[in-house]
Amino acid sequence: MNIGILGLGTVGGGVVNVLNKNQSEIARRSGASIQVTHAAVRDINQDRICPTDDLQLTQDPFEIVNNTNIDIVLELMGGTGLAKELVETAIKNGKHVITANKALIATHGNELLALAKDNNVHLLFEAAVAGGIPILKSLEQGLSANKIEMLAGIINGTGNFILTEMRDKGRDFADVLKEAQALGYAEADPTFDVEGIDAAHKLAILASIAFGCELQFDKVSTEGISKIEGEDVTFATELGYSIKHLGIAKQIDGKMQMRVHPTLIPKTRLLANVDGVMNAVLVKGNAVGPTLYYGAGAGDEATASAVIADLVDIIKGTVSDDILGWQSFETMPHQTVDEIESIFYLRLLATDKPGVLADITTVFAKHNISVEAVIQKQIDAQNNAHIAIITNQVKTGEINAAVNEIQKNDFIQETVKIIHVETLD
Amino acid sequence: MNIGILGLGTVGGGVVNVLNKNQSEIARRSGASIQVTHAAVRDINQDRICPTDDLQLTQDPFEIVNNTNIDIVLELMGGTGLAKELVETAIKNGKHVITANKALIATHGNELLALAKDNNVHLLFEAAVAGGIPILKSLEQGLSANKIEMLAGIINGTGNFILTEMRDKGRDFADVLKEAQALGYAEADPTFDVEGIDAAHKLAILASIAFGCELQFDKVSTEGISKIEGEDVTFATELGYSIKHLGIAKQIDGKMQMRVHPTLIPKTRLLANVDGVMNAVLVKGNAVGPTLYYGAGAGDEATASAVIADLVDIIKGTVSDDILGWQSFETMPHQTVDEIESIFYLRLLATDKPGVLADITTVFAKHNISVEAVIQKQIDAQNNAHIAIITNQVKTGEINAAVNEIQKNDFIQETVKIIHVETLD
Repeated sequence: MNIGILGLGTVGGGVVNVLNKNQSEIARRSGASIQVTHAAVRDINQDRICPTDDLQLTQDPFEIVNNTNIDIVLELMGGTGLAKELVETAIKNGKHVITANKALIATHGNELLALAKDNNVHLLFEAAVAGGIPILKSLEQGLSANKIEMLAGIINGTGNFILTEMRDKGRDFADVLKEAQALGYAEADPTFDVEGIDAAHKLAILASIAFGCELQFDKVSTEGISKIEGEDVTFATELGYSIKHLGIAKQIDGKMQMRVHPTLIPKTRLLANVDGVMNAVLVKGNAVGPTLYYGAGAGDEATASAVIADLVDIIKGTVSDDILGWQSFETMPHQTVDEIESIFYLRLLATDKPGVLADITTVFAKHNISVEAVIQKQIDAQNNAHIAIITNQVKTGEINAAVNEIQKNDFIQETVKIIHVETLD
Repeated sequence: MNIGILGLGTVGGGVVNVLNKNQSEIARRSGASIQVTHAAVRDINQDRICPTDDLQLTQDPFEIVNNTNIDIVLELMGGTGLAKELVETAIKNGKHVITANKALIATHGNELLALAKDNNVHLLFEAAVAGGIPILKSLEQGLSANKIEMLAGIINGTGNFILTEMRDKGRDFADVLKEAQALGYAEADPTFDVEGIDAAHKLAILASIAFGCELQFDKVSTEGISKIEGEDVTFATELGYSIKHLGIAKQIDGKMQMRVHPTLIPKTRLLANVDGVMNAVLVKGNAVGPTLYYGAGAGDEATASAVIADLVDIIKGTVSDDILGWQSFETMPHQTVDEIESIFYLRLLATDKPGVLADITTVFAKHNISVEAVIQKQIDAQNNAHIAIITNQVKTGEINAAVNEIQKNDFIQETVKIIHVETLD
């Protein structure tokens, strides 16, 4: 099998390096010696993290996807424009495609998988979700006996790094974000990471494979971490929680829900102890119970590990991807945001006067919301009370209605902060 | 494909139940409707945890392995005598075999896998290690691009339950063991669990698949948890560690080491937070870095989940088991116990008199051992000092020599306790 790479940056270079350094291990497992023969790069004279002596380099990526000697194309350039066109061309030319491109799969996966099916080739993307963690293979194969009830993952390393630093060092969001950008964890435009879009791409892919339904990226309800303040982190800690940016998918009574948002989870849960840039996905199957998969969500060789695992599967003929694309699935119905049930954390800044808590809890009672825990901090210089409340499990529509009502009171001094809570038990 | 089960107890009954309740999910993933048709049981009139209406029951297991209509045999009866004979017969009769029997694979796996290869059938055993966690498939497929440098696992739920209770509730080993037996976690003869033999079986299997070498159960150095005392748990906590019963395999300079023993690990590590009967395996690959797999290590439906995953792989043709058995591997050379490097925790009970610590540290210096941390507790009623020491990384031979020398001093009041420490960083 001849292999061509589109893009020889961090991931592409990592693939070449790992194939070189683990040649004998990979040959033992795949039964074949695997070598990349061709690579398309933007600038042929640029310095690389990998040797290029054995590679035929080109600046025209179409030379790769149209080359009749190439059997497998690795799309490691990113983006959803040119990358899509190249993947389509490769598939139409009868080549298997492996990609690490979560945006491409989340937004165009249904049509690309259908195209791959029509052309009798594989389109694999283990590296698109949670980097080196073999989470897609585990869902497809390791847990094939299960109906997946829910999954919850820390699937964006940048966001997790920021939240970990905020919790452990009492730092501000903006301050840590700057450091993350300096360290190369976050892009110059950090929107994809901190506003949850990257995580939403990955969640759409996870949910689709877990539940066996079409990719429905547009159905993910997404909220970033940029509004998390130090006071929320402190309150969460005092209440026994850690704040993590989770992607959550659940299957309830034949309907699914997908949401990305900051979430308070009990400190003792394994996910609460997944720190820094690391990723982890908790999966609950109705036979196996809770399982968790942890590892590096990014990095050249970690991502390369997942790309090459797909490569070995194609070469050995052990691809197990008929969950998605190889059969046609109906779109699974969705819960509306209002229908989604959750526990909530609310943070209120209220003038300190008699009856404030009574007024708040009266509104809760009207909406059948009960208070599971409350902390009121000492009054500040402006005579305001800082209050944190944990509710019982209620519909999102109910909590929003209650908070809208509470917000109208004169004694409320700023917008009430609402954050999801998941016990993960 | 017709499927016959040997043994319809906890695991066998679980398999039938999970196949029933997840029929449509499993059919979607496997492309086939899977049904067990035959089952061999010891007593045909016994009550079962699963319905038997659709099963042809027999008390003669040879009826199953000799039945020409049966294609796949699930060996879920346990033991290494009759079970071995039945598995051999099934394989010779051209049937694929799936087993959850760790003792059988660890002690007879090499010959059984060779026999399977000769007969062109599969012998799979995902359920034999860490119950429902798809750890073997992850090592074989998900991490196929990696040279595995080390793995460390909590792979015996009973032992982990006992250590968790001792740590969290200050209970004694014997006391918790009794409860574990009452709860059905531990057998009437708990030796296999608490002395590490069960974990050693699983470690031998893990190492063999991770490193691609023959099963070498007799090379596992094994130590149980029955000698862990409350004082060790307290000292460990004060030093920032949790005591876990780990199975550890490492590949160093072309040699391997396999060992099962109580281990102090830093409290902040994910493995330190795997509590109760849960299992987890940390795997370090040279490309992906550290990854971790967590879930239920036992139980009817969790184990059934792994058995059925193997079944689906056979039916779909996505078995990836040529790491073990399908090629012939040389025995990998082993480090001797003396060569194995580790950090150590020592606990000493010494008469409180001037110069005791100096005498101890002088012996350490002679053996090139340095002290990384030391706690000396207040003197007890017998005028003895309770001392805990954490060393640097040294060869096991050196620490044993040093401790032998220290033990000879009159001021040492009881046998020095030695426990391994792993930083897992």
